[in-house]
Amino acid sequence: MRGKTRLRANAANDNFRKSNVTSLAPEDYNMADWISVKEARQAESVATDREVRGWVRTRRDSKGGFSFIELNDGSSLGNLQVIAPAELANYENEIQKLTAGCSVIVRGELKESPAKGQATELHADEIRVLGWADSETYPLQKKRHSFEKLREWAHLRTRTNTLGAVMRVRDQISQSIHGFFRENRFLYVHTPIITASDCEGAGEMFRVTTLDLDRLAASGGPVNYSHDFFDKPTYLTVSGQLEGETYATSLGRIYTFGPTFRAENSNTSRHLAEFWMVEPEAAFFDLADNMDLAERFLKYVFSETLNHCQEDMEFFDKMIEKGKLEQVKAVIEKPFEHMTYTDAIKILESCNEKFEYEIQWGSDLQAEHERYLTEKHVGGPLILTDYPSSIKPFYMRLSDDEKTVAAMDVLVPGVGEIIGGSQREERLEVLQKRMAAQSLPEEDYWWYVDLRRYGTVPHAGFGLGLERAVQYITGMNNIRDVIPFPRTPGHAEF
Amino acid sequence: MRGKTRLRANAANDNFRKSNVTSLAPEDYNMADWISVKEARQAESVATDREVRGWVRTRRDSKGGFSFIELNDGSSLGNLQVIAPAELANYENEIQKLTAGCSVIVRGELKESPAKGQATELHADEIRVLGWADSETYPLQKKRHSFEKLREWAHLRTRTNTLGAVMRVRDQISQSIHGFFRENRFLYVHTPIITASDCEGAGEMFRVTTLDLDRLAASGGPVNYSHDFFDKPTYLTVSGQLEGETYATSLGRIYTFGPTFRAENSNTSRHLAEFWMVEPEAAFFDLADNMDLAERFLKYVFSETLNHCQEDMEFFDKMIEKGKLEQVKAVIEKPFEHMTYTDAIKILESCNEKFEYEIQWGSDLQAEHERYLTEKHVGGPLILTDYPSSIKPFYMRLSDDEKTVAAMDVLVPGVGEIIGGSQREERLEVLQKRMAAQSLPEEDYWWYVDLRRYGTVPHAGFGLGLERAVQYITGMNNIRDVIPFPRTPGHAEF
Repeated sequence: MRGKTRLRANAANDNFRKSNVTSLAPEDYNMADWISVKEARQAESVATDREVRGWVRTRRDSKGGFSFIELNDGSSLGNLQVIAPAELANYENEIQKLTAGCSVIVRGELKESPAKGQATELHADEIRVLGWADSETYPLQKKRHSFEKLREWAHLRTRTNTLGAVMRVRDQISQSIHGFFRENRFLYVHTPIITASDCEGAGEMFRVTTLDLDRLAASGGPVNYSHDFFDKPTYLTVSGQLEGETYATSLGRIYTFGPTFRAENSNTSRHLAEFWMVEPEAAFFDLADNMDLAERFLKYVFSETLNHCQEDMEFFDKMIEKGKLEQVKAVIEKPFEHMTYTDAIKILESCNEKFEYEIQWGSDLQAEHERYLTEKHVGGPLILTDYPSSIKPFYMRLSDDEKTVAAMDVLVPGVGEIIGGSQREERLEVLQKRMAAQSLPEEDYWWYVDLRRYGTVPHAGFGLGLERAVQYITGMNNIRDVIPFPRTPGHAEF
Repeated sequence: MRGKTRLRANAANDNFRKSNVTSLAPEDYNMADWISVKEARQAESVATDREVRGWVRTRRDSKGGFSFIELNDGSSLGNLQVIAPAELANYENEIQKLTAGCSVIVRGELKESPAKGQATELHADEIRVLGWADSETYPLQKKRHSFEKLREWAHLRTRTNTLGAVMRVRDQISQSIHGFFRENRFLYVHTPIITASDCEGAGEMFRVTTLDLDRLAASGGPVNYSHDFFDKPTYLTVSGQLEGETYATSLGRIYTFGPTFRAENSNTSRHLAEFWMVEPEAAFFDLADNMDLAERFLKYVFSETLNHCQEDMEFFDKMIEKGKLEQVKAVIEKPFEHMTYTDAIKILESCNEKFEYEIQWGSDLQAEHERYLTEKHVGGPLILTDYPSSIKPFYMRLSDDEKTVAAMDVLVPGVGEIIGGSQREERLEVLQKRMAAQSLPEEDYWWYVDLRRYGTVPHAGFGLGLERAVQYITGMNNIRDVIPFPRTPGHAEF
């Protein structure tokens, strides 16, 4: 047995070995027994008696009396080329019947490959077929499918090049998010998913209940919440920010990273009912600190992704959106420019661009305006600040002019807004006034207001939608293709 | 300005500086301008002109004409001792009025401390009070509060020693979970929270809906799901395993780590309606690989936590559960024993222990049985395997004896079961038979069954409840005290 490095080697295990657990093989395999396709594709892996396990992408029979099998196990975009000689005992019987999707274990000699575009190839001494995939019914045949079609097979679509690459990049971005905040001494906090409060006094929310809807409908009303699980109406969270602030004002620097929900009936390529959001919040941070944090954060995440997902990113650059690599590199390399909303309005009013939506001080910027500013005016990432208080939520810090708030939106070429954040209102009276003006009852937010009552501190934070970031970096056009199982109006399959 | 290392230094920023954003201070502070209490408490931080920002824990006036302030900012359990001389301009006016919970910025000379139990102390040149905390109404006065009472102030309770330590340990465990799986080439996958299917054909679930419950109740029925967001009944997930399997059988090794829900009306110290679960799933893993993975995983997470949270762990060992450190170290150092369910039953039947619940082959083990086995019989961590198929879900792999399945539970002293998992049934016909026997309609699981139809492979995985792990390692008695905002029957505050 090759490279056995098991931890368990005590007496009790002998009993276990006698038990009737069915092993994968007569010998007792373990993780160390086989290498990934990714490892196998590196020239350093060259050796005899190597084993790889994965799924057949294609098989091609050579006139020379052997077959080429392209093998993939999800560890990399590229396949490992397996050469299966006719001498294999099951060559005619099984190997020549292999089709896309079949699962195999291959053992053999890993050699440097004479072929172009691959460092190594595996000369099989033995191929064991684990599972077949009927080519009549297996959906992922060689022909190309639309991403729309692939969504119907969301349980299989990561077996394709594009969706596999998307999910590896999504993993990398998620890992980099944790990496960045950890390095900067932010604690990971899990804010609640089920909530009885509504973050911004706005946003359509999903209801959560244990009431039997059929019985409720038949009852003729009214709803008796004392029979519901939480004794009151509850919802799925639209943001962990308010709860996050309670942790920032005790533990200093925190971030949330979890699922977030919007019950908006939006059937667009940029909306999901369920998505993942990261929300850092830091005590003693002002808007300037917050902007620095957002800039360093994006640069860190993007450069980590370019470094660790080189092959996948080159694939997106070539197959999904040409020029993507240069665009992402520019965000990493260029210092982010800063501009106030007021200055932005002046630029938009005086430029010669034709916009669909008119713009004037006090109105919200549309994507077309944001993209003009970041793409044409600045030609790089841009942070807009100091928005009118009338278009921003109550918790953003009112500036001395009493017309604007310490808000910030980070805009990047190709997508527009990617991050939104603000310094929070830390002054008790100002916060109370703004809540009253928006008819938000203070008793619903007593705990939030308490943070200003007891040891209040300036603090700030922002939010980044994970899927927007994945969409941006991969160039994928539809947000439904960058999350494993998208939830949209009418769709909760799998 | 000290240690300015800002990224932004371009022309556009000059405009920004002229804007009316209110900064934390006349000078333009940033993250590099101050150090954490944790850093300040290390002797290497000794220097003049150091700044710390945080909250007052206590103030004590010395007869020598100065005050001692214990300052905390959440970065560590221990406080920084600040010495405030009477010469400070605001000494009488403000410093002598400081009480628990007030927020301050302190600048001064960080010196080695002559006092016992601390390496350094900060001699203040300047103390700026940011926020007061009325000692008449601030809940966290010097007196000790019960954990039950502190739950009513969940927005403030992390300002106490114990809850702060719990949340730092919770962060560390979460980070170690990501670290372990990343090192072992598992991809982080976000399985859906809203689902139309029910993982195990069991478990009480929360309903998710956008139907107006008041209107529904008044309608007199029946429920028209075409008006609901997803056009059909949907629920909050009880496990991401089934969806995780689809990713493991394409990308190889994956793990989920996200919120999970149970609508069980259990008011115990070990149940939450909303909790976080990590579920790895690996293609080509059999039960033996799965056991190795679980053992290495627990050892990694526990030892990372001991290494990185030394001060907090010593606190738990001293204040919450004596002997905890030794117990955790034993789990790290001892090889896990393995035993079949059948052998365990024999041991339980022949031992002289008195159990509340009788035990015989075919019945589920109770906590008392699990704890007897791991604590008294083995005296260390134990993995039980090969449970009767009748007490386990349909997806677990049927063994050759056709009576047991390739299930595994990891038991540790002090708590009993901490991990549950299995090798999954990869054989199409066997899976179909088991589903039929449990009256699970195949059409509801068509995509799950597809994985066995197309390139099926042996695979395995397990689940760990994050809160159970935090409870175990900290010794905290009630699970409501190891999650930021606990959701239990009747409780969805904050």
